[in-house]
Amino acid sequence: MTWPDGATHAVSITVDVDGTYGLPRGGEGSSERLTARSERLYGVVRGVPRLLDVLAVAGVSGTFYVPGAVAIEHPATIAEIAGAGHEVAHHGHRHIRPGLLSAAEQLRELEAGVDALESVIGSRPTGYRAPEWELTPDTLAALPSLGITHDSSLMCDDRPFEVTAGEGTLVELPVHWSLDDAPHFARGGDPHVLTSIWDDELVCARAERRHISYTMHPEILGRPHRVCVLERLVERAAAGGAWLAPHRDVVAHVAA
Amino acid sequence: MTWPDGATHAVSITVDVDGTYGLPRGGEGSSERLTARSERLYGVVRGVPRLLDVLAVAGVSGTFYVPGAVAIEHPATIAEIAGAGHEVAHHGHRHIRPGLLSAAEQLRELEAGVDALESVIGSRPTGYRAPEWELTPDTLAALPSLGITHDSSLMCDDRPFEVTAGEGTLVELPVHWSLDDAPHFARGGDPHVLTSIWDDELVCARAERRHISYTMHPEILGRPHRVCVLERLVERAAAGGAWLAPHRDVVAHVAA
Amino acid sequence: MTWPDGATHAVSITVDVDGTYGLPRGGEGSSERLTARSERLYGVVRGVPRLLDVLAVAGVSGTFYVPGAVAIEHPATIAEIAGAGHEVAHHGHRHIRPGLLSAAEQLRELEAGVDALESVIGSRPTGYRAPEWELTPDTLAALPSLGITHDSSLMCDDRPFEVTAGEGTLVELPVHWSLDDAPHFARGGDPHVLTSIWDDELVCARAERRHISYTMHPEILGRPHRVCVLERLVERAAAGGAWLAPHRDVVAHVAA
Amino acid sequence: MTWPDGATHAVSITVDVDGTYGLPRGGEGSSERLTARSERLYGVVRGVPRLLDVLAVAGVSGTFYVPGAVAIEHPATIAEIAGAGHEVAHHGHRHIRPGLLSAAEQLRELEAGVDALESVIGSRPTGYRAPEWELTPDTLAALPSLGITHDSSLMCDDRPFEVTAGEGTLVELPVHWSLDDAPHFARGGDPHVLTSIWDDELVCARAERRHISYTMHPEILGRPHRVCVLERLVERAAAGGAWLAPHRDVVAHVAA
Repeated sequence: MTWPDGATHAVSITVDVDGTYGLPRGGEGSSERLTARSERLYGVVRGVPRLLDVLAVAGVSGTFYVPGAVAIEHPATIAEIAGAGHEVAHHGHRHIRPGLLSAAEQLRELEAGVDALESVIGSRPTGYRAPEWELTPDTLAALPSLGITHDSSLMCDDRPFEVTAGEGTLVELPVHWSLDDAPHFARGGDPHVLTSIWDDELVCARAERRHISYTMHPEILGRPHRVCVLERLVERAAAGGAWLAPHRDVVAHVAA
Repeated sequence: MTWPDGATHAVSITVDVDGTYGLPRGGEGSSERLTARSERLYGVVRGVPRLLDVLAVAGVSGTFYVPGAVAIEHPATIAEIAGAGHEVAHHGHRHIRPGLLSAAEQLRELEAGVDALESVIGSRPTGYRAPEWELTPDTLAALPSLGITHDSSLMCDDRPFEVTAGEGTLVELPVHWSLDDAPHFARGGDPHVLTSIWDDELVCARAERRHISYTMHPEILGRPHRVCVLERLVERAAAGGAWLAPHRDVVAHVAA
Repeated sequence: MTWPDGATHAVSITVDVDGTYGLPRGGEGSSERLTARSERLYGVVRGVPRLLDVLAVAGVSGTFYVPGAVAIEHPATIAEIAGAGHEVAHHGHRHIRPGLLSAAEQLRELEAGVDALESVIGSRPTGYRAPEWELTPDTLAALPSLGITHDSSLMCDDRPFEVTAGEGTLVELPVHWSLDDAPHFARGGDPHVLTSIWDDELVCARAERRHISYTMHPEILGRPHRVCVLERLVERAAAGGAWLAPHRDVVAHVAA
Repeated sequence: MTWPDGATHAVSITVDVDGTYGLPRGGEGSSERLTARSERLYGVVRGVPRLLDVLAVAGVSGTFYVPGAVAIEHPATIAEIAGAGHEVAHHGHRHIRPGLLSAAEQLRELEAGVDALESVIGSRPTGYRAPEWELTPDTLAALPSLGITHDSSLMCDDRPFEVTAGEGTLVELPVHWSLDDAPHFARGGDPHVLTSIWDDELVCARAERRHISYTMHPEILGRPHRVCVLERLVERAAAGGAWLAPHRDVVAHVAA
């Protein structure tokens, strides 16, 4: 593959802004758990600005996957993300794992998410990522008719590929748990170890001249002592000659 | 924010002295588990003196969150903590997660905790921290009428803020799992990694000129090979020009 | 023990190619979990070629334990493994833990696995490894009559030994969880730590002049940033004067 | 405290030889789990000799806590341990957690364990350690009448102390999970980190001129790449001027 401007490889920074909907079953039954809710809320209030600052300093545009209900609850923050040039994409409506819902409910979640994002940022999303990375056949099949052209929920390759979705196709930009901050910090991980792992992955992507997506959460990587992981990642990506681009631009390039 | 004596930032050392009430549901049903109880008891018998020694050498006053029942069971230890100039604050009565109790039971736990601490240290606590960091709306709403002016159970910011509590307000001094020793050592963690993480957080708090709270447990950080984490933390905080103060003093400064 | 060509010790690289059958109960009930399935599929599509490349560069033949159903689903990949000179051995049919099945069902799984591998690679396997490393008396007893001469599922020694299996015997090439990549990376482990552990085991095997088996999974160690663990392992084994051989060759040597 | 020969501190190496009885509920219901059983059996067959070699080279006598049923199943190994000058002490009969049993069953387990050890090593044990470190009031109360003079199951101090047991008293030699190899390696831990933690504990014990007990399992620390943890521990203990002694000798010294 070749990348714009002679870049050796391509890197996407993706951020899942789950807010309190990131709690189990989208926070259903957790309304009285003030501390658990406040831990998630930190991501929107403090984590997002911190991540945005790092991206602004580095001049990097990323893709922010946002559940519709989070956009409705925090419209100014989500509009600010879009206004800074980042892609705002679909991450369900209430961030409920699709596999827990019927096909009809899955469709309603998808439609509600599109409507919510459109109402907040003024345009319909073209990218989708399944809540909790559990894509189902019903959700996948419904995506093209909603205007979605790319998905980022599968792990069966480490290069962009085409995936059949109902009667259409999508570009898949694959992910992996080792490229996600959540498992690493689930039990108090060391940021320096994650920096080392993510840098090794960068070296591999460069050697294979391919695209790679990193996934982070503002309530996790946006904590003060962890944001250095993103700082070093974008520094090293740029120093290595990568094209740093949001998913929509990677898809446009791959399709062209 | 500015801090007393031209300090660049402010640091609070907080210690949760849970004793055997730190077992699930405050130790209910664990009366025959002698080893599990003895593991927790270590904190009161050996851990607290070791932490007090480190704080005394460094000339630092901290905030000790103590369940009322622990104060009644170990009055001399808790009185010694207060006598050394540390703040003794409210950490429930039997250290039962508020979300497991009805609103009436939550209120009784709060009242019993205030009474117990007052009987042991001669004054009513003005600070509160929810057992197992699970604050509920009912407990939060009840705090002001009990004379509580500050809480330390929420995670939605990393700066002190005002929180509505029933018909009053409290100053919230927020916390986080990464600033707590318990998750790090839940599965045999490395003290040197925690020292590194906590030092990175100190550097961030200094850069942002803000307040930061660290939380520790005497049966965890008071183990011989782990107490160095506290030693290095207070050394580095002092060397970095921090104001090291208990929560009550931080609240008084912030309110002024 | 002595090894061919004056080698000081013997090393087997073994790879479990579980595919989507590596999900609980062989993937039963997971047909709609597209992401979970895709994570496993990565091993066959991307992980196996990457591991094969490392082995080809190093000139090493390994043993690939393959469930029959995986061979049927991916015949070209499995035939390519065999064609490159690696041993393809029996790893159940649907990769269901034998202890979950009746004796008759266990036998059917064994027979189906033999038939599937024979249909894909043209010869019957002579080695067996129990799915999820849970060997049962019924499965063990059935192995000799199916033409199996060696097993690699037990942990009671670190040297090859003879094990009674029904009315026959097998050569056992023992394993251990610390010599398997799966537990190490179950929660986001550091490849450099595993390299260190595996190198220490290599030094011990050399000092004791014995055989050692390493076990890996293509969806785990075949991820870009982890394949270096295999690269360094085969480099150090060769540099230390080891005989690197598949299980069938070790068994032939031990039997001779 | 003072220690023999002017030693600054005292160190006991203790080994729990659980064999297949170390499986949940003493292995009840696990008879068909050949791999799980073989993992435990490794400790008796390969781990114990490896640990004995390290202790012999260092000239150190330790305390081996052995369930009665393990002694009956492996009499030669247990007799060899005793013959090499190590203390063989009581670790239950079938290694069933006392809290799972009635008071009468607990007593029967204790008696069976005493009888089994006496039949194998020719003398009655004087030390006890509760299976899975879950001492109960009933078991504790029964110990003195069985000839037990010291216990090693509690965690409420890090110095030897006297504990009331029924109508008698015992010397307690306390333990802790951080001084046990099992939690550290439960998920694939790094031996070098455990060496560092145990060395830090040694330094603390020396500074406080006290006794310390380390606990290990032959199927865990007796694996090839982990035995270095014991080698380094006894080297550093000796180099630091410690008195290395089994529990019975520490108890005799403390009582005198």
